[in-house]
Amino acid sequence: MIPAHLSGATRLVPILAHPVDHVRAPRIYNPAFAAAGLDWCLVPMGVHPGDFAATVAQLARVGNLQGLNLTIPHKAAAHALCARLGPEARRTGVVNTMRIDADGQWSGESFDGVGFVDAARAHGVLCIDRPVVLVGAGGAGTAIAFALAAAGVRELHVVNREAERAEQLCAELRKAYPDIHADTRAGSLGGAGLAINATSLGLHAGDPMPFDPARLPADAALFDIIAARDTELMAACAARGLRVVGGKPMIDHQVAAQIAFWRGAAA
Amino acid sequence: MIPAHLSGATRLVPILAHPVDHVRAPRIYNPAFAAAGLDWCLVPMGVHPGDFAATVAQLARVGNLQGLNLTIPHKAAAHALCARLGPEARRTGVVNTMRIDADGQWSGESFDGVGFVDAARAHGVLCIDRPVVLVGAGGAGTAIAFALAAAGVRELHVVNREAERAEQLCAELRKAYPDIHADTRAGSLGGAGLAINATSLGLHAGDPMPFDPARLPADAALFDIIAARDTELMAACAARGLRVVGGKPMIDHQVAAQIAFWRGAAA
Repeated sequence: MIPAHLSGATRLVPILAHPVDHVRAPRIYNPAFAAAGLDWCLVPMGVHPGDFAATVAQLARVGNLQGLNLTIPHKAAAHALCARLGPEARRTGVVNTMRIDADGQWSGESFDGVGFVDAARAHGVLCIDRPVVLVGAGGAGTAIAFALAAAGVRELHVVNREAERAEQLCAELRKAYPDIHADTRAGSLGGAGLAINATSLGLHAGDPMPFDPARLPADAALFDIIAARDTELMAACAARGLRVVGGKPMIDHQVAAQIAFWRGAAA
Repeated sequence: MIPAHLSGATRLVPILAHPVDHVRAPRIYNPAFAAAGLDWCLVPMGVHPGDFAATVAQLARVGNLQGLNLTIPHKAAAHALCARLGPEARRTGVVNTMRIDADGQWSGESFDGVGFVDAARAHGVLCIDRPVVLVGAGGAGTAIAFALAAAGVRELHVVNREAERAEQLCAELRKAYPDIHADTRAGSLGGAGLAINATSLGLHAGDPMPFDPARLPADAALFDIIAARDTELMAACAARGLRVVGGKPMIDHQVAAQIAFWRGAAA
């Protein structure tokens, strides 16, 4: 769960969060660093939003800093500190990964959407020529929607508990990708080639399902971003013979992309 | 070598150093934390002396900070930042251990001397009624000299490559402890009850011995603070039947005392 050793030669990747107690990311990142042969360590640090900019400035001066990982509530503030932004960060307005470039300036990028698209492609469930239904328009859903549009998806239906947020996301998508058909049509599941759960429903046993899987066509695929467990939605779709991908591959692809980004850090 | 897990619930003890690459302290502290049932992690951070005060101020605001460990070259600067100092820090002018108290102020202490005396006492080699010969008057030697005086040693002979430093240390000891007999007499080994190597000689195989062990009386004890290996000096004294203690117990006792100090940190 942690790097095989920790010493003064270890490069640090602090993950800044507030509150910090619930952060479990070291269990994902540190084995991935070790598997990549990197003597790096992801270290959770609890940083109050009011201290965020000053803490980042001070960490920039730590000799063995490799980069930063940002989580709630720092992703928008991180975006504001970066002199350079990657394409997903520009699209979404948030940054979850920072590095210092050779000129001493911060570069930032987000990898939620890239991680999703890479994983969907690797598992053969990314379809750009059939309708995609995205359930959930929060942070993850927004990142996935933009990444799908960037990947060439032509018809996207966004369903969200708060319909207004779904409408807003569709408007943003249409503005950024004028050729996309993006709407919030409720009855769209029946024609979907890919359905995505981007809500937190399914994280806990007994959660209601985010949508009725019986409405999906038999040749559709399900991508459920819940990584902590196999959800009831996944089980129901698998029982119907649908192709099913869980959240773990999305995390794996995101971490791989983040490692590549941090490796680009100035020595 | 490291805590059994690392998560957002883990309390951090950064060790600040410059340069940081050579720091191996996590291999000592993290198993000790785990053995004490503490979800703490010692994390090396490379901090330039010019950034030291600002970094400490920023770390003070990190929510999951348990305390700080200071090493070269920060021990005197750490002393200057503490609102409260323990007895060894007051005696020596250096701090290697800091915590934040309930009033938000830093407390600092050093534990080199305490670690030595606790280990010597635990191994039955601390003698206060016979002469003690201390070879080496650097940082470790100075801490040990003051701790021996505080423990009640009445006759202390200090030998150092630079004789002037030994003279200075003896003068400081006599000022702080007017009843002590402290001098730099060279021929003192023959009457010693305890001889101490507080130099770095013996750290590497082939180093010359810091003194000739044949000059020690048969009922004397040797304490060699080198912890990384069993030194030639230790082997020669053991071969003569002297009681011998190496540097590892000193570290163990120091770490135990530091843990107790950090546990006194404000929640």
